[in-house]
Amino acid sequence: MSGDEQVRLARAYLAAVAEPPAPALAACVAEHGPVRTAALVRGGSAPGAVADEVESRRRHVSGADLLAATRRIGARLLIPEDPGWPAERFGLLAGAAEVGVPGMAAPLALWVRGRADLNEALAASVAVVGARAATGYGEHLAAELGHGLASAGCAVVSGAAYGIDGAAHRGALAAGGTTVAFLACGIDIDYPAGHGRLLRALAQQGAVATEYPPGTTPRRHRFLVRNRLIAACGQGTVVVEAGARSGAGNTANTTDALGLPLMAVPGPVTSASSVGCHDMVRSGKAVLVTSTPQVLEMINPLGAAPLVDPVPAARRTDALEPRARQLHDAVSACKGADADRLAQESGLSLRAVRALLPEMELAGLVERKEGGWAVCAG
Amino acid sequence: MSGDEQVRLARAYLAAVAEPPAPALAACVAEHGPVRTAALVRGGSAPGAVADEVESRRRHVSGADLLAATRRIGARLLIPEDPGWPAERFGLLAGAAEVGVPGMAAPLALWVRGRADLNEALAASVAVVGARAATGYGEHLAAELGHGLASAGCAVVSGAAYGIDGAAHRGALAAGGTTVAFLACGIDIDYPAGHGRLLRALAQQGAVATEYPPGTTPRRHRFLVRNRLIAACGQGTVVVEAGARSGAGNTANTTDALGLPLMAVPGPVTSASSVGCHDMVRSGKAVLVTSTPQVLEMINPLGAAPLVDPVPAARRTDALEPRARQLHDAVSACKGADADRLAQESGLSLRAVRALLPEMELAGLVERKEGGWAVCAG
Repeated sequence: MSGDEQVRLARAYLAAVAEPPAPALAACVAEHGPVRTAALVRGGSAPGAVADEVESRRRHVSGADLLAATRRIGARLLIPEDPGWPAERFGLLAGAAEVGVPGMAAPLALWVRGRADLNEALAASVAVVGARAATGYGEHLAAELGHGLASAGCAVVSGAAYGIDGAAHRGALAAGGTTVAFLACGIDIDYPAGHGRLLRALAQQGAVATEYPPGTTPRRHRFLVRNRLIAACGQGTVVVEAGARSGAGNTANTTDALGLPLMAVPGPVTSASSVGCHDMVRSGKAVLVTSTPQVLEMINPLGAAPLVDPVPAARRTDALEPRARQLHDAVSACKGADADRLAQESGLSLRAVRALLPEMELAGLVERKEGGWAVCAG
Repeated sequence: MSGDEQVRLARAYLAAVAEPPAPALAACVAEHGPVRTAALVRGGSAPGAVADEVESRRRHVSGADLLAATRRIGARLLIPEDPGWPAERFGLLAGAAEVGVPGMAAPLALWVRGRADLNEALAASVAVVGARAATGYGEHLAAELGHGLASAGCAVVSGAAYGIDGAAHRGALAAGGTTVAFLACGIDIDYPAGHGRLLRALAQQGAVATEYPPGTTPRRHRFLVRNRLIAACGQGTVVVEAGARSGAGNTANTTDALGLPLMAVPGPVTSASSVGCHDMVRSGKAVLVTSTPQVLEMINPLGAAPLVDPVPAARRTDALEPRARQLHDAVSACKGADADRLAQESGLSLRAVRALLPEMELAGLVERKEGGWAVCAG
């Protein structure tokens, strides 16, 4: 067996022997390498905290069986030793674990479907998450955002759930862009069941990835654990809709804990699905965003292209100083008035009126007509 | 003529002789009093800056005629020397003028319809403003907010315009509360024309007020000038809907310049009518608010009653520490499993599982059944 194969076997074993996140096991692997750590674990001689994480499964897991199953289902095992491993993104998780943020740890390996090079894909990426119980408004926006970000060359990272997640993925797919889904179950399980087609499209055009071994069923805590991968893999996270209690809130907190920009899209205050977004903005945790350019600006403040939202055309009189605007209003109200009348009407002094009228005439705002002054048409 | 009558005559003259805002005239009145200032102005011997403000009208205005007209139309002239004058609110405008904020100056007098004591009414008050071109969503919220604030004993201050203003007034009226409208025209003019009934209802239950003498027609710059009275008379301003270019933006800027809390209600990002609100929140100028309690909290941070938004009920398992949640998920997924099986399923050590199960049983979360552990119903 080559050294490479040994490492992959060890990684498969380690990724399955502990329930993620496994910070002690990850730290042990960082110190001793995967092959030595796997041997320690298998032999029952791993140090204390690691032993706790692996005790119940260490005798029931086989790396060789897992790799065979992975091949059989048409997936691949991506390991940190591979060039496509998003080392920088997952380094954020390892760093957070080191400073003691609870629940953090880089994954030990990823099961992946799809040919996208994850590391390249995630070089420019935004996580778009939100409620499963989304409204039409939320799904529309998630799709728009997914489309806009993908069109701008940003990978869209999400969780393949119903509602916001699915809409964001679909928007990115429609733009022909890259989009990556992280699952809370084995790569061989279509979850949610109704998203089988979406998952296949994701594998074709982007990637589907999970740290859970084949056969792992989704459970509530696994969604929360999985969310850290989504948060870490975006250079920022946008929450499109979130109720007062939403899994998206968990992804948002992790984004915040990782020091990455958190954004929230507002919605009608009458909608329960936007309560979480509004709370995040009110508490100062999230920045309010309403458009793709505003999201891009947040993750790339020194971005090459000037990303400016369209500003509505100004009225010609907007730039007038207050006295000129006051006079313009008076000319408009009193058609054909002379300077004396305009002074009285506007309340300006006659001197001011006489000084302003020629200026405004030159600017094409007013004109001299028979009988007095008038506002220019248009 | 009594001294009081002299003062009222002088105030009527002064309020009409200059187009508001008239900071130089207001400063002169503050220094020399209204009677002496009126004499100086009428005699053409007012100092420089004041002369400019009054020159075009000083010979055309009669205080006596104005007072007669005021009586004829069933209004009254409220002057700073009256007990109902909201001195504290308008003191903010005088203060802003003193430190050089452009366009600021307290009004020299107010024409008022309605018996409400303005000073008392404005002791607790919120300005609610927004777009004339409001959506059904915005009008609904403005009415809710007007109703909620009035029910909490807060006067609702606005501008009687179509859209948000009208809805806010109507909400307050429906709650039987106090609401005050400031006009940009004479008190004898129903503007907008379609709001004649609303204006009469306001006069009956609250007050309609203006610094413009009877007969003054509304003009564009007068709305902007009027907005400072609305901003100053609320202890905070809520913008319900505002397009990218909206008069409400002007009221918002004034609120900010006066150091009063500015709030904005979010809406669908697909609605042009909420763009201004979102911009204010993004720029940090306004705090996002979604409910009446949140508005009351802003104007009264040490308020007597704890104003807490309802928090949705938590699930019983929400408080569980991560390992217990992990175990609870495993018990739920594997009905009737023993501790060994649960350790393997959850990835927890057998020791941890054996320690946690009795605790969770005591908490009523899991129970021992024939054949193994199960999650308690409910």
